[in-house]
Amino acid sequence: MSTDDGLVVRNKQVILKEYVTGFPKETDLYINNGGTIELKVPEGSNGVLVKNLYLSCDPYMRSRMSNTRGSYVDSFQPGLPIKGYGVAKVVCSRNPDLKKDDLVWGITGWEEYSFLTETKSLFKIEHKDVPLSYYTGILGMPGMTAYAGFFEVCSPKKGEYVFISAASGAVGQLVGQFAKLLGCYVVGSAGSKEKVDLLTSKFGFDAAFNYKEEPDLDAALKRYFPQGIDIYFENVGGKMLAAVIANMRVHGRIALCGMISQYNLKKHEGVHNLISLIVKRIRMEGFLVFEYYHLYPKYLEMVLPNIKAGKIVYVEDTVEGLEKAPAALVGLFDGRNVGKQVVVVARE
Amino acid sequence: MSTDDGLVVRNKQVILKEYVTGFPKETDLYINNGGTIELKVPEGSNGVLVKNLYLSCDPYMRSRMSNTRGSYVDSFQPGLPIKGYGVAKVVCSRNPDLKKDDLVWGITGWEEYSFLTETKSLFKIEHKDVPLSYYTGILGMPGMTAYAGFFEVCSPKKGEYVFISAASGAVGQLVGQFAKLLGCYVVGSAGSKEKVDLLTSKFGFDAAFNYKEEPDLDAALKRYFPQGIDIYFENVGGKMLAAVIANMRVHGRIALCGMISQYNLKKHEGVHNLISLIVKRIRMEGFLVFEYYHLYPKYLEMVLPNIKAGKIVYVEDTVEGLEKAPAALVGLFDGRNVGKQVVVVARE
Repeated sequence: MSTDDGLVVRNKQVILKEYVTGFPKETDLYINNGGTIELKVPEGSNGVLVKNLYLSCDPYMRSRMSNTRGSYVDSFQPGLPIKGYGVAKVVCSRNPDLKKDDLVWGITGWEEYSFLTETKSLFKIEHKDVPLSYYTGILGMPGMTAYAGFFEVCSPKKGEYVFISAASGAVGQLVGQFAKLLGCYVVGSAGSKEKVDLLTSKFGFDAAFNYKEEPDLDAALKRYFPQGIDIYFENVGGKMLAAVIANMRVHGRIALCGMISQYNLKKHEGVHNLISLIVKRIRMEGFLVFEYYHLYPKYLEMVLPNIKAGKIVYVEDTVEGLEKAPAALVGLFDGRNVGKQVVVVARE
Repeated sequence: MSTDDGLVVRNKQVILKEYVTGFPKETDLYINNGGTIELKVPEGSNGVLVKNLYLSCDPYMRSRMSNTRGSYVDSFQPGLPIKGYGVAKVVCSRNPDLKKDDLVWGITGWEEYSFLTETKSLFKIEHKDVPLSYYTGILGMPGMTAYAGFFEVCSPKKGEYVFISAASGAVGQLVGQFAKLLGCYVVGSAGSKEKVDLLTSKFGFDAAFNYKEEPDLDAALKRYFPQGIDIYFENVGGKMLAAVIANMRVHGRIALCGMISQYNLKKHEGVHNLISLIVKRIRMEGFLVFEYYHLYPKYLEMVLPNIKAGKIVYVEDTVEGLEKAPAALVGLFDGRNVGKQVVVVARE
């Protein structure tokens, strides 16, 4: 236990100004430079005091910026720092499982230092011969999302036709690579030439297209999948989902991971062709990664050797400093990030 | 083999006048009294000549009345008799598995006699100590639909909260009774007081409501399921599906069996809240009964003793004579039938 009297230091924070409606703006968040924190865990607590190193910008955080109820995560509180996945180093601990200088990933605050009490949800980082920032992405929540969503929800088989939307994102780029490793035919959609190029040149997708240049998504999908789609990994929702349903094959599977195109709309787009799910006996299933974390050791066993062998790559979009965090987070929603969006708070 | 020279007899038929758009009308079909048929199977065929006894009116037949492509069944042909499930008696057979006077159920023509060549899809009726008409319903396609949809697709567990739309129909009344036998809490919706009364008084549903008297389906479902819905057996689609999704519990399952409210619309209603499938990790799955017919013997083993013990009942709505068949079929789409709609062509 490291419970020496703690230093009191500055603790810069990213604060939610007020609940957001519609598209979030950078100014919905602000930086508070005025706070301090004592680097010490209070007596009687079994929490940890951590120094935040890398913060993860994830689309699901949008719902926490609004005053929503009945979601699977609570809303952020205006006036307080927001929270999200991150990589951190333990500075002080009263928790028997964690000690000073341990590295962890899990939910932390968007600030320089955080006092964390939900220690059960923290993963201790054992493998350090990879970039630490990977624990916000391929080795963290997005990696597990891709793994569980593809292997557990989609029931994929070698040779099947797989389509992924938002395919260059934190999750999509991995789903595509997992599907290629399994021997599937893989096509992805993304929102810029740069991203589309990445999909085929870097991630090994068989083909890719820029959805912004396709006035008729149905026609685009027919071009890339003349034989139809067996598996759709859904990250965007709305029009794209409808177009995919129209192009699914019999016994197709749709894993609903996210619907980023809908998060900022007042009324979500309607999907009018659900009857095709009957005609084609399609299974459409929503999932949340936190129900699959028991598979994390199995996932690491699969993914770590593939990373080291260069068979799976991971592209991050990194900004330096908490000051840039609001723009980085908000940028997700108009697709400014190329690859996994990470905020570097400190490198050590 | 019974291949004596056949009698030539009148063969009254129900003919599709032309392809239908929108709501089908009785006049979209007409009776042809002028035809004849020889009661004999041509040499070289291994088909059967059957006398039709009972014909089944089923909602899926609507799509066959339009010039649709890409469905799982072909369209009917204007100028020819329509087809559907029915119970028939073999008059003449060149098929080694069927002989004169055997009773069968399966796809036959809407006419007095049919020459059937797709004999593999016919089920020979072995159990005759039940009403023969049951083989158009509880012991036929609708029964298997209820059985497969509920037990195979919904993965039901004792104590779960089950909602069924079009609940007094050929399939719905059975799903509700199966769910009650399993120990579920069961609520159904239907379109008249008479049907709603049937659900609770005859089929043992815990509660039932008339959807036509509920301006706010969401509020109605909240009233009947304050704790939410685990399983939805979907027969109607559109607004009802959206209202149900809003009231599903975490890990709920939706079996998509039919969407009768949508069949006659030019553009199907949009469902705007699919994002809830993610938040609540819901599985929504379409199915077609013909992929489950291998379970038919197992189903009979379950259902026959329950019928004989009076633990499962079945309500039919019967009309007499092919002349009444067009009105009976078309009546499905504004819910005129109370229970399974059957046309009696002949009783023996």
